[in-house]
Amino acid sequence: MSNERVINFGAGPSALPTDVLEEATKGLLNFQGTGIGIAEISHRSKEFTAFLNDAESHIRTLLEVPPTHKILFTQGGGSGQFSSVVLNLLARHRLLHPELKDEERVMDYVVTGSWSKKAMEEARRLGRGRVNIAADARKYSKDGKAFDNIPAHDEYAFSADPALIYYCENETVDGVQFSDDLGSPAAFPFHKLQQGGLLPLVADYSSSFMSRPIPRLADHAVIFAGAQKNLGPAGLTILIVRQDCIVDVDAAAKLGAVPVPIMLSYKTLADSKSLYNTPSVLPIYIAGLVLQKMSAGGGLQVYAQSNRQKFEKVIAALKKGEEKGVFKGKVKEGSVSWMNIVFDVPGEGRLQGFLDGAAERKMKGLAGHRSVGGVRVSLYNAINQQDTDRLVEYMNEYAATVV
Amino acid sequence: MSNERVINFGAGPSALPTDVLEEATKGLLNFQGTGIGIAEISHRSKEFTAFLNDAESHIRTLLEVPPTHKILFTQGGGSGQFSSVVLNLLARHRLLHPELKDEERVMDYVVTGSWSKKAMEEARRLGRGRVNIAADARKYSKDGKAFDNIPAHDEYAFSADPALIYYCENETVDGVQFSDDLGSPAAFPFHKLQQGGLLPLVADYSSSFMSRPIPRLADHAVIFAGAQKNLGPAGLTILIVRQDCIVDVDAAAKLGAVPVPIMLSYKTLADSKSLYNTPSVLPIYIAGLVLQKMSAGGGLQVYAQSNRQKFEKVIAALKKGEEKGVFKGKVKEGSVSWMNIVFDVPGEGRLQGFLDGAAERKMKGLAGHRSVGGVRVSLYNAINQQDTDRLVEYMNEYAATVV
Repeated sequence: MSNERVINFGAGPSALPTDVLEEATKGLLNFQGTGIGIAEISHRSKEFTAFLNDAESHIRTLLEVPPTHKILFTQGGGSGQFSSVVLNLLARHRLLHPELKDEERVMDYVVTGSWSKKAMEEARRLGRGRVNIAADARKYSKDGKAFDNIPAHDEYAFSADPALIYYCENETVDGVQFSDDLGSPAAFPFHKLQQGGLLPLVADYSSSFMSRPIPRLADHAVIFAGAQKNLGPAGLTILIVRQDCIVDVDAAAKLGAVPVPIMLSYKTLADSKSLYNTPSVLPIYIAGLVLQKMSAGGGLQVYAQSNRQKFEKVIAALKKGEEKGVFKGKVKEGSVSWMNIVFDVPGEGRLQGFLDGAAERKMKGLAGHRSVGGVRVSLYNAINQQDTDRLVEYMNEYAATVV
Repeated sequence: MSNERVINFGAGPSALPTDVLEEATKGLLNFQGTGIGIAEISHRSKEFTAFLNDAESHIRTLLEVPPTHKILFTQGGGSGQFSSVVLNLLARHRLLHPELKDEERVMDYVVTGSWSKKAMEEARRLGRGRVNIAADARKYSKDGKAFDNIPAHDEYAFSADPALIYYCENETVDGVQFSDDLGSPAAFPFHKLQQGGLLPLVADYSSSFMSRPIPRLADHAVIFAGAQKNLGPAGLTILIVRQDCIVDVDAAAKLGAVPVPIMLSYKTLADSKSLYNTPSVLPIYIAGLVLQKMSAGGGLQVYAQSNRQKFEKVIAALKKGEEKGVFKGKVKEGSVSWMNIVFDVPGEGRLQGFLDGAAERKMKGLAGHRSVGGVRVSLYNAINQQDTDRLVEYMNEYAATVV
């Protein structure tokens, strides 16, 4: 069966390692010799709680998460966290500064693509506070409208003592990513943030989580990620939360904060070790198997190196195609995501032709997001060098035949 | 592999049909010949959206859900809905009656066990309204503390024009269930509700969903259920929502209602056909396969009949054991759940002996909830007559040898 599988360059849900899926087929019928499948076993059984602790400890080791931060598992995806970060961090701010008026509670949003824009809109809709756009990448785009760049460091205007500072590390739709090289002009401008104290810095890492180390992880208040890119099936959301951000939301509500639904409170998740109610056991299982494979395979640096190589290969093919006028990259050099490379295939019917040719060669999931069109190549961890080579070969072949 | 499986009487996550799990192992690697596994395929692919629509239509047919009601899929479990029903139905009430003060918005809760109690506590914590306990089963228990009965119809005191009326159809921890026979004194007292108009009636059906038809389904505003009992893996929550309860929560917030996190708004789910963000694709897949099997197997009445038979067999064995003083049922006659039968095994060390003996005979998951102890036999759909017979045989054997 597995040799009939195609290469899936989809942006999420996305490819998972075939050997992990094969292992999971066994667990589905009989988890660790219990005689009960993983989807059927009690989330409070000693077998499952040990598995959950193990998954957590792999994340802690792979990402070098310090003891100041808890690792929590929840449901609801990135969009769920758009609400949760606002509710929990405004509650924290209210407890720290009960005297402030609502309009004095500022939430700084760095808007570099569709997802950070959506998160910002949720803050406006939900939060009892004021949104400050610390930077909007569209201002610096070619046409004033596209999300095609990471703004220059001079362009960020952060507030003093905000309730939260929000950015999306990798924009899956637009193919824009902050650099992990802190010396790069496309790195997140950590040096411009207020120095000293505990920053309320929030990062959406959904589509790059576990693809490479997280720069300045310890300085973050909350890092969140849906699992369905590099890690596992949809239905699992992973949080890394600094302990001062796990606050008594009920006490904050008494002071005027928006009441927080019980499952959205970080305190609920932390106090129950992510088992307040039944978690998404099956997605956790597959993500756990992927984490075991990552640790056994040499850790995060091995993946980071491989991901860089894959990125460079595709970029080289894209550039070659651009020189011939066959492809047209959408994102400014230096801001291009390792995970999602987006480009156009200009010319009547050419995009469809490119996608059809890929499908004939058993490569799928290459259509861009419906809001922007074009091609999107997602190079998550489960895409290996051979898969990448197959695509690069096809890109080169396509560029050669079109002209 | 599958013949090593034990019988899993666990209360949830719980047993799933072996043939469905075997089918799912194929889909995990290659979903419907796409060459992409179900956990990896885009939730916006035509293959997955067709599958989702099919699952919805099986639910609609099996439960005879009228066109007045939408079927929605979400995440977060029953506990997530404890918050959602309060937020959405208070928003509805606010839009209908903007002139009322917060303390004039009443939420009626029928408290018959641990789960309805938790739901009521969330309403107190979260809602901008007043909770009225329409009935509390503990008042009518043997010791004034236990949830061991469904109150008599005379004991319910509902409010006039409440924002919501809440009950939990089956209490998984306590083993108490409303009768599906509307002539029974243990049926929900529909006849005592305000007549005419659209009632804001909410039912938690988590642990009995799809085990038998839902009485007076069309009169409900919201029915919700976590999938992890009769239907599928944890991580999927199914909602049946009457369309007048899908309201503009932002408009309500402007009138003073609690702002609703975007993913908790029924309108978000309905407008996007449950695809506002990535749903829990893999749990949906397995639940979908179970639904297909149910339809092919003759529909809900077949399951209802089988479930009644299973229940009667275990109850007969329990009574025999009671006569010998070996077992002691915890729930008042007539209020006993079909799905979760709870009893004690009195005497030093006897409970553990009973559970150990079951485990030796490859029957697991029989320990009662940690808050109440004892034995709990969960007889969800995936437990068949043979499984039940095995347990009954053991119960009889145990009762015979102990004395």
